[in-house]
Amino acid sequence: MKLWGGRFEERTDKFVEEFTASLPFDKRLFRHDIRGSVAHVTMLCKCGLITDDEANTIKDALGEIYREMESGEFPFDLADEDIHMAIERTLIDRVGVVGGKLHTARSRNDQVALDLRLFLREEIAEIAALIVAFQKALVETALNNLDVIMPGYTHLQRAQPVLFSHHIMAYFWMLGRDIERMHFCREQTDRLPLGSAALAGTTHPIDREYVAGLLGFSKICENSIDGVSDRDFIVEFLSAATLIAVHLSRLAEEIIIWNSSEFGFVELSEKYTTGSSIMPQKKNPDVAELIRGKSGRVFGDLIGMLTVLKGLPLAYNRDMQEDKETLFDAVDTVKACLVAARGLIGTMTVNDKAMVQAAEEGFANATDLADYLVGKGVPFRDAHRTAGEAVKKCLVECKALADLTLGEFKALNKAISEDVYGVLSVKESVKKRVSSGGTSPKRVAEQLETAKQVIEREKDWF
Amino acid sequence: MKLWGGRFEERTDKFVEEFTASLPFDKRLFRHDIRGSVAHVTMLCKCGLITDDEANTIKDALGEIYREMESGEFPFDLADEDIHMAIERTLIDRVGVVGGKLHTARSRNDQVALDLRLFLREEIAEIAALIVAFQKALVETALNNLDVIMPGYTHLQRAQPVLFSHHIMAYFWMLGRDIERMHFCREQTDRLPLGSAALAGTTHPIDREYVAGLLGFSKICENSIDGVSDRDFIVEFLSAATLIAVHLSRLAEEIIIWNSSEFGFVELSEKYTTGSSIMPQKKNPDVAELIRGKSGRVFGDLIGMLTVLKGLPLAYNRDMQEDKETLFDAVDTVKACLVAARGLIGTMTVNDKAMVQAAEEGFANATDLADYLVGKGVPFRDAHRTAGEAVKKCLVECKALADLTLGEFKALNKAISEDVYGVLSVKESVKKRVSSGGTSPKRVAEQLETAKQVIEREKDWF
Amino acid sequence: MKLWGGRFEERTDKFVEEFTASLPFDKRLFRHDIRGSVAHVTMLCKCGLITDDEANTIKDALGEIYREMESGEFPFDLADEDIHMAIERTLIDRVGVVGGKLHTARSRNDQVALDLRLFLREEIAEIAALIVAFQKALVETALNNLDVIMPGYTHLQRAQPVLFSHHIMAYFWMLGRDIERMHFCREQTDRLPLGSAALAGTTHPIDREYVAGLLGFSKICENSIDGVSDRDFIVEFLSAATLIAVHLSRLAEEIIIWNSSEFGFVELSEKYTTGSSIMPQKKNPDVAELIRGKSGRVFGDLIGMLTVLKGLPLAYNRDMQEDKETLFDAVDTVKACLVAARGLIGTMTVNDKAMVQAAEEGFANATDLADYLVGKGVPFRDAHRTAGEAVKKCLVECKALADLTLGEFKALNKAISEDVYGVLSVKESVKKRVSSGGTSPKRVAEQLETAKQVIEREKDWF
Amino acid sequence: MKLWGGRFEERTDKFVEEFTASLPFDKRLFRHDIRGSVAHVTMLCKCGLITDDEANTIKDALGEIYREMESGEFPFDLADEDIHMAIERTLIDRVGVVGGKLHTARSRNDQVALDLRLFLREEIAEIAALIVAFQKALVETALNNLDVIMPGYTHLQRAQPVLFSHHIMAYFWMLGRDIERMHFCREQTDRLPLGSAALAGTTHPIDREYVAGLLGFSKICENSIDGVSDRDFIVEFLSAATLIAVHLSRLAEEIIIWNSSEFGFVELSEKYTTGSSIMPQKKNPDVAELIRGKSGRVFGDLIGMLTVLKGLPLAYNRDMQEDKETLFDAVDTVKACLVAARGLIGTMTVNDKAMVQAAEEGFANATDLADYLVGKGVPFRDAHRTAGEAVKKCLVECKALADLTLGEFKALNKAISEDVYGVLSVKESVKKRVSSGGTSPKRVAEQLETAKQVIEREKDWF
Repeated sequence: MKLWGGRFEERTDKFVEEFTASLPFDKRLFRHDIRGSVAHVTMLCKCGLITDDEANTIKDALGEIYREMESGEFPFDLADEDIHMAIERTLIDRVGVVGGKLHTARSRNDQVALDLRLFLREEIAEIAALIVAFQKALVETALNNLDVIMPGYTHLQRAQPVLFSHHIMAYFWMLGRDIERMHFCREQTDRLPLGSAALAGTTHPIDREYVAGLLGFSKICENSIDGVSDRDFIVEFLSAATLIAVHLSRLAEEIIIWNSSEFGFVELSEKYTTGSSIMPQKKNPDVAELIRGKSGRVFGDLIGMLTVLKGLPLAYNRDMQEDKETLFDAVDTVKACLVAARGLIGTMTVNDKAMVQAAEEGFANATDLADYLVGKGVPFRDAHRTAGEAVKKCLVECKALADLTLGEFKALNKAISEDVYGVLSVKESVKKRVSSGGTSPKRVAEQLETAKQVIEREKDWF
Repeated sequence: MKLWGGRFEERTDKFVEEFTASLPFDKRLFRHDIRGSVAHVTMLCKCGLITDDEANTIKDALGEIYREMESGEFPFDLADEDIHMAIERTLIDRVGVVGGKLHTARSRNDQVALDLRLFLREEIAEIAALIVAFQKALVETALNNLDVIMPGYTHLQRAQPVLFSHHIMAYFWMLGRDIERMHFCREQTDRLPLGSAALAGTTHPIDREYVAGLLGFSKICENSIDGVSDRDFIVEFLSAATLIAVHLSRLAEEIIIWNSSEFGFVELSEKYTTGSSIMPQKKNPDVAELIRGKSGRVFGDLIGMLTVLKGLPLAYNRDMQEDKETLFDAVDTVKACLVAARGLIGTMTVNDKAMVQAAEEGFANATDLADYLVGKGVPFRDAHRTAGEAVKKCLVECKALADLTLGEFKALNKAISEDVYGVLSVKESVKKRVSSGGTSPKRVAEQLETAKQVIEREKDWF
Repeated sequence: MKLWGGRFEERTDKFVEEFTASLPFDKRLFRHDIRGSVAHVTMLCKCGLITDDEANTIKDALGEIYREMESGEFPFDLADEDIHMAIERTLIDRVGVVGGKLHTARSRNDQVALDLRLFLREEIAEIAALIVAFQKALVETALNNLDVIMPGYTHLQRAQPVLFSHHIMAYFWMLGRDIERMHFCREQTDRLPLGSAALAGTTHPIDREYVAGLLGFSKICENSIDGVSDRDFIVEFLSAATLIAVHLSRLAEEIIIWNSSEFGFVELSEKYTTGSSIMPQKKNPDVAELIRGKSGRVFGDLIGMLTVLKGLPLAYNRDMQEDKETLFDAVDTVKACLVAARGLIGTMTVNDKAMVQAAEEGFANATDLADYLVGKGVPFRDAHRTAGEAVKKCLVECKALADLTLGEFKALNKAISEDVYGVLSVKESVKKRVSSGGTSPKRVAEQLETAKQVIEREKDWF
Repeated sequence: MKLWGGRFEERTDKFVEEFTASLPFDKRLFRHDIRGSVAHVTMLCKCGLITDDEANTIKDALGEIYREMESGEFPFDLADEDIHMAIERTLIDRVGVVGGKLHTARSRNDQVALDLRLFLREEIAEIAALIVAFQKALVETALNNLDVIMPGYTHLQRAQPVLFSHHIMAYFWMLGRDIERMHFCREQTDRLPLGSAALAGTTHPIDREYVAGLLGFSKICENSIDGVSDRDFIVEFLSAATLIAVHLSRLAEEIIIWNSSEFGFVELSEKYTTGSSIMPQKKNPDVAELIRGKSGRVFGDLIGMLTVLKGLPLAYNRDMQEDKETLFDAVDTVKACLVAARGLIGTMTVNDKAMVQAAEEGFANATDLADYLVGKGVPFRDAHRTAGEAVKKCLVECKALADLTLGEFKALNKAISEDVYGVLSVKESVKKRVSSGGTSPKRVAEQLETAKQVIEREKDWF
């Protein structure tokens, strides 16, 4: 007989039992469920709703169940529907009627909302730690390759020379925003739903603030109906997860491109690549590809959850059971991808020669020529046109800009003089981009300093 | 040593092995993988690429592996990466060098494309059968409730009286289109990719048409690069699956609404409902809610797959490994929901009295009044206005339209005479909607006849 | 000749001009573009890069263009590609070469990133104001219906009696979280990208902090590559917008259900409903339906943007032009829906009699019976079973719980005595749910007080 | 007064009028709406529901309205809500009461379903024609570059040499499946919904088959409720559109990569590229980037529509008004991208030297070495290992495989003899891949022949 079976005369259909059961996946929440129950019992006892003896009996039995689940010995039974019922039914089996008092003043509706918040709060902290670890790896990669110049790209066309470390640090700041989002997400999980009961609150004189304190929440849900129907914190996390996935997919794409024979900017470690079953020469960037591809499942998780919530009347509806696998999948995916991306970056070799050579070819210094002309008093638009014409001339003659003679330069624009050759070296070009946040070595050094402080601050958050 | 490890000096990182492994989920494809390998070996032998003895040795060993996997005895090892490697490595372990000949003229790229097509073709047939079974249940429900009148709704407002069987049959035709899509999807899986090898075809004199025949394909992929990079058939299936999910979510929503105390149109079986852990009176339509909610994961699966493919260069990329879990999840979800919906419909009780009462209230016969006026020569727009004014008058006076006196009617429009009362009964209203596809009993009877023929035709397809 | 045409010999294809043009939609950004340009010019002048005269000439001409665009007189030309070029080209046409100096030390890449941030910052403030206005309307609705009791629902089944004002306030807190997200989104837009130039920063001695101050930014983008490629702030906003859409879709669904004849809980104003072209009696909740349906386009906008960014290499790519229509659509949709939902709530009539009657039927007091038993020392699970059996008995006998005799009660459980009848009234039931956040009038009054303070605090944010 | 205003006493709120109006976008359907009305009137007359004179009066007036809308003279008024009302109200204004007879036996519900089907049927034909035109361009590109060898890629790593024409033809077959989907989509639009009326059919003795014939439908919707609530045909089209978008995004990605300086495989026309506002040398593949990026909006359109339909009760709900902008956007996007992609391919220059050079480097012939060993009787797995070791040796010594001496080869595997050098040329490698669908020139020639036949067959469809 189900714990809720009082009014029922017929047994649940076997298929229905399976179809509706969440136990196969929500058993993952056992730690959080038991932690919540222990806090609840402690409060029930403090408020005089159960005796000390009863509280201890329940807590001891819960502790035993916890240990069995931890060690894998617990005999799960699908008929229990979900982790809450599995634990409570076992409790009652073991300690008798007193076990039935655990559910006083609560419902599965507020219980599962609590478990999910406890779970997510924990995972957010882990993900934040993984992001910071990845940020550190990015800083290290930048520090290890301080002098490497590469072409910066727009439209996958060589645009202007930049420091490789500057390019890598762009990801640092993206990830930094991911940390800010994790911080915000954590704050949003910080409201205790327990005590909302089924949806209306409870008649028992409970103390929700006390439970909040025991479980480390600083606020309680202000409205019991909202308390059981709110899954915003899951959507927020999933949204934040899609951005992590986007960032990693962009880095992955770049590594895949850099690792092509044509670019040859990096060489991936054999530890982080795999071979082909048919082509003996292949060393494939599978890890990067999977990181890129796994963005799809995170997007899918978000859409899945949004679809579930669309048009759902208050308060709890069983549709919401779909929140769990979605959330678990996104959590696991994002964690694995962060570890993978860190390993990928940490084990790859930067081919500095290929990078600088690419920067030197391809007219990445054309903007410098234009800027040089602006320095000579030429309006920017005219300077731009002159530089464009110089490029056109070089393309026809298969030259680099620096190969033009002074006479040729002057024919294009009289404002050009001997000192033009100084501005056409990629090293000079990089060095001169001194605006705040620019790619000059000085600015990148400052950026790395700031980055270290950011990492320190992030640590204080989690 | 990996089977592809010739050029590698370092072992794959342990984490990478786990991160890239698809074995935990693609082992589900073992039947299809071995079936494909057996056909491939048969062809290699026929084409003189291996001897009869070699072919038999390989086939026998594959048969043994098949049986072990079937019975659950096979000792899977995560280091094998995927089901293809797990099988091939074991084969070589068991029969020695000759096992290495199995992979002649093929690559994992065309092999996995084949496995997925074989898998999906099979599942499509199963899903089609489940749809037909559900359609039958809908026809039965319609037949069992032939005379039941309910309000048809637009905007969840009572609109016009309809037969409940007519309403239920609307779902029949939706599901009928799902069958047409399954039919189309099956045709799209019907191209053999094997023989595309890594991406360029093979130098060995193989016979792809022969393999196609052995495996029941009527066509081969015409271009080897497309053969290994094409996943259209998966996206097509997922798209078709979202429509199944949409249809079921709409039915589920209606059942949830009908099952509310306020509507009271149906009563769900205790076998197909569950109770509440806190509210003793509850009998919740969880099955319908889960069907509705699970549309989310199917939408998510589709978006996941589309995201993977977006902007992916040819030919095979490891991102595509993400196709499997996505596909498996959608297949399993759709199948389970079809079974669940069938059971739900089949076990629910229709409350005909509540339905007809609702149809009689709420001015669902106002269109009949307007149509009656049109019959008297009044332009439709004027007739519509008169009927609207009649409704307004009744609302104020808390009456039904049939409660108005002839004098009151005539005051609204002189064209009205005594025979108006005949058209205001819901039974008459339904009976008169005789246009093709309309709700009159005669038309619904025809519809049910056509439906039976449709079911017969569908059987021939699969 | 295009402003960028120096190296080009052939004209852009006519179709390509149209295909790539963003002017038809990005002209909406003209205010932000000009505001940014004025700040940029002011800084160029302060830093000695242009003279006071030049600065004034440019600013005057920009002011003129602003006024023409504002009044609709500006002659847009599709050949200008985008709003930035339209303005700059016109500037140069009007003031000559000095106009070409405006683009010194910037690129369209950082310019468009700036415009989008300025635009979104403004819109966020407007949306926040609309949310607060809607929250006020919710509070008012709650205050106007303080004593109305309705059934609280789970699974669309009557669960427990609640105050209508409590139910409505659940939406207040959802919207409150939307405000928190707007707050966060605004903070995330608060970084100046200008000065990132094309991607590498600029060689000119500019003062980004000064520009930031002029435009009201408190921070600058720390990395120029990130500065031009970052669209996180758009994704964040779109994610937050999906949650607003989800919340409104849930309210819309409830209003549609409440407004059905079967529920009859509310009556919508004729101002906020529409009729049917064929059914004269219809008064349809179109506004609610559109609010519910428009969640789809917001979800679509988010997926659209995420798809654009997936796997995009750094820094700027033209794909990112797709950010604008997506963002504009979500902004407009969310704003319109907030206004619509406020009007809908503000003009609807609550049918308190229908609500309380529904609460009294349907065993919504069964939990009270169980709680009563717990109060008598019965373990919760046993109390639950007894209440379930009482419901079962009443269902068979077509009774309410309060209709059972004391003898009948005692036959179910000896712990029941005369005082049971006190707990079975819905008014009592509501009154007793005194836990924090519960539905008792006292708690709801407190909740409304807190709500008013929340509204005050929100005002300070924006 | 609205045409549906009979029962209403208050005017629609101004904001609501705007919020609910679809006229700004659905006026695009005027041709289809009028075409449907003319057929409807013709049938009403044939069935004796209106006189010849009435029919002619209505048709003449509709013709006039059509011409005014076509020429842009028609004075649209937002208060008309939608295109149906705009036309009908104008009709009644112009011809008086007889105009009111047009709406006999129909509702806006079946009318809009008809308009959408007529619209989509037409657009599908146009899109199919654009796909075929693009396929022809692909065939032409293949024919113009028959002998060009490039490296085939997997994982963006050089895998095996292939013909460029073979690679390009992979897209031909993808697009061929898009045509098959358009074919299927067109069939799915081929059901006449008109005559379903509001949802229940009509009491008038209409002839739906006759209307179907007039409008070129071969079937009618079998169930009136389904007739007005079905939007499957839109979802199907949107799903098919996502695959077109995926295919084009993949091609766009490849063109962007090929067009990079590092690959240098193609040079895009100046007509199909744009410059940079700051970097004078840039010639950016904007068209390809926009094609890639626009996949996002198509995915978004699909998700938008699916979200609208999720959990929507039958029959018509105003949420469904959201179908139009979504559909229009996807239609316009896909059409523009097909034109853009065709122009891009048709104007780009193939750099055959860069392609073949890339094929010759990078060990793309390693599989050939392995296949050579298999030909000598070595099991495939051992051959694979030997080839891998050869690659490793060459990598260390910076050699190509063909640079190894026979002695070095023999040290790796005794089975190798002098003839090995013959198999290591990329031309030989390509020539030998003779399996069906493989890249050998002979097979590609066959493929091109088949392609031409496919194009012929496709023409017959549309």
